[in-house]
Amino acid sequence: MSGPGRRPQTTIFTTMSALALRHGAVNLGQGFPDESGPAYVIEAAAAAMRDGHNQYPPVAGIPELRQAIAAHQRHWYGLAPDPDEGVTVTAGATEALTAAILAFVGPGDEVIALEPSYDSYKAAVAMAGGTLVPVRLEAPAGGAGHWRLDKDRLAAAVTERTKVLLVNSPHNPTGTVLDRGELAAIAAVAIAHDLIAVTDEVYEHLVFDGREHVPLATLPGMWDRTVTVGSAGKTFSVTGWKIGWATGPAELVARVKDVKQWLSFASGTPFQYGIAAALASGDGFYRDYAAGYQERRDLMVAGLKGIGFDVHEPEGTYFVTASAAPFGYADGLAFCLELPERCGVVAIPNQVFYLDQAPRPEVRFAFCKRLDVIEEGLRRLG
Amino acid sequence: MSGPGRRPQTTIFTTMSALALRHGAVNLGQGFPDESGPAYVIEAAAAAMRDGHNQYPPVAGIPELRQAIAAHQRHWYGLAPDPDEGVTVTAGATEALTAAILAFVGPGDEVIALEPSYDSYKAAVAMAGGTLVPVRLEAPAGGAGHWRLDKDRLAAAVTERTKVLLVNSPHNPTGTVLDRGELAAIAAVAIAHDLIAVTDEVYEHLVFDGREHVPLATLPGMWDRTVTVGSAGKTFSVTGWKIGWATGPAELVARVKDVKQWLSFASGTPFQYGIAAALASGDGFYRDYAAGYQERRDLMVAGLKGIGFDVHEPEGTYFVTASAAPFGYADGLAFCLELPERCGVVAIPNQVFYLDQAPRPEVRFAFCKRLDVIEEGLRRLG
Ligand SMILES: CSCCC(=O)C(=O)O
Ligand SMILES: CSCCC(=O)C(=O)O
Repeated sequence: MSGPGRRPQTTIFTTMSALALRHGAVNLGQGFPDESGPAYVIEAAAAAMRDGHNQYPPVAGIPELRQAIAAHQRHWYGLAPDPDEGVTVTAGATEALTAAILAFVGPGDEVIALEPSYDSYKAAVAMAGGTLVPVRLEAPAGGAGHWRLDKDRLAAAVTERTKVLLVNSPHNPTGTVLDRGELAAIAAVAIAHDLIAVTDEVYEHLVFDGREHVPLATLPGMWDRTVTVGSAGKTFSVTGWKIGWATGPAELVARVKDVKQWLSFASGTPFQYGIAAALASGDGFYRDYAAGYQERRDLMVAGLKGIGFDVHEPEGTYFVTASAAPFGYADGLAFCLELPERCGVVAIPNQVFYLDQAPRPEVRFAFCKRLDVIEEGLRRLG
Repeated sequence: MSGPGRRPQTTIFTTMSALALRHGAVNLGQGFPDESGPAYVIEAAAAAMRDGHNQYPPVAGIPELRQAIAAHQRHWYGLAPDPDEGVTVTAGATEALTAAILAFVGPGDEVIALEPSYDSYKAAVAMAGGTLVPVRLEAPAGGAGHWRLDKDRLAAAVTERTKVLLVNSPHNPTGTVLDRGELAAIAAVAIAHDLIAVTDEVYEHLVFDGREHVPLATLPGMWDRTVTVGSAGKTFSVTGWKIGWATGPAELVARVKDVKQWLSFASGTPFQYGIAAALASGDGFYRDYAAGYQERRDLMVAGLKGIGFDVHEPEGTYFVTASAAPFGYADGLAFCLELPERCGVVAIPNQVFYLDQAPRPEVRFAFCKRLDVIEEGLRRLG
């Protein structure tokens, strides 16, 4: 009964959310909001259920949602995926990313990803028989400044075996939003080496201080080689619905869909109606959404600084990375394993997002919580 | 930008449902009912959404649903999976089966499956780098009698590389319900060669004429080596919710969950509450469900016979296989590609479920439709 011997490894989010439950801790770990999305989104999904929309959707998703996704990309970024051939709905961004990796990566191939990198990337690349080659983002110590991409380091990571550039912006866990210079460097490498880019842009609407989110697919020469992955879960605060998507040129999206049909096949019919309604939200919704999170970010950043953490104020996402070094911790994992019992707070150690898993003092706190929950978390940490 | 060169192949259900839409045909192809499940199931999911259950569930599923699945297996089959360690909820049976195959099958390994076999099996085995070894079920020609398993043929299919027995009963597309003799033969092979069994039992409650569905896991010596896959979509007529599960001993279920966390991660939080309520349905629900489908089966079988098909009356599932040979067709695929335009009816050619894809006259009609829809389909076929 032996299998292929993959080492079972549980995602950090399961481990930490279980700890939160066990200790009744304030869960600033796993990135999900504590309030549901707009009532009109919930009601649209409920109405779809009552109207009998409960059977399999098409593998690519219901036409209404594919059109809404295409219109959303046109409105915000001037991109024009074909709603029929250039959009496929998935069981969340995770399924889209895994399907893309399984579609484009074969045994022995290499995938370059920004490090720290979200934990499903490495697992999906391993499933495809490939190797993840990390390119480290670096930030000045002491919380001064953001994690940034070094163009030379990126260029040096490319080999004959490189197939895919996996790009995540706004970046989880660091909160970095790649700027046009960094994106141009990525595009230059992709074009020079004829690579496919797969981007994880689930925090596309969570950028702060007037910054802009620039999809890699909008850069010259990139549309034809880029699969853009998005998700409704973060933007509309329904992470449990798991409605994500992959968009891009028909040829690449067809390959993602081809794999995805054997993973979940298709999913979430009534939710697809709900998200089609959600994507019709006016610009004001997105403005308020970002402004609401910027307020929480400011509260969290100020609170953590006040307690004595070295804080890297995020440019985007709903995560802030802070160093526990001022408290004498070099190992963020040890810190995070103690935290629930000692303080009743759960956070995520950034080191689990590094290939070498070496101890690092950085810890990620999620601020996708009500203001009073953030305040209670800060009080307990203090 | 070349990838690993997997040949994109679209599931037959997508192809045929698209044809149905294009020709306004009666869709007797893809297996989904045209009426939604019980109102109390829909309302339980809607209530969960309104109560704010819209964020990530645990990877294994919400405790309420895991407990309901375990209780359901105890009640019907005397099985006792541990609700915490022996049950994992998935994005439908497809995800459970693919995750199990990716968990247990490595490059070069062989998976034995009953043929004809559901099309995702082959794709999932290929994704794992393994090979599907078919064991043909055979039926007497002319519609007399059911497809049955030949024990010697099964035993002969085992090699040094066999890792998994993939068993589907009630069987799609033939409608065969494996009897205790066949199951005992499968168990004997699994035990003799120390194999893992993965079973697809999504039609567990659709058995006719007083037959019983016997999970392979109930046979002596099988519990420890069997992952049982079930789904709520068929039983509660909510195929678009994609709530399935894998159950079994903790060690095997952990390995399925370990893979599944990188596919969809987790999905369908409000639906999970709905299905927990659904599984609390009394025995009467399941009796009425089977009786309702038996009536439709009888209508479909009599109608197809009346038209002149050779009909294999199904023992279970909501599919009936009929041969188009009496109309001079040796190639069911050609027959099914003509049918939408000529008659306004869609059916599925059984040959797509064979590894050799050779022409076969058998065609599958789904009778999970309202009686008047079945009648209209028969009228058009006539
Ligand atoms: C899919 S669980 C993890 C949620 C998330 O995106 C995060 O916390 O980083
Ligand atoms: C997942 S689409 C196919 C549905 C089904 O189980 C069938 O028609 O056989």
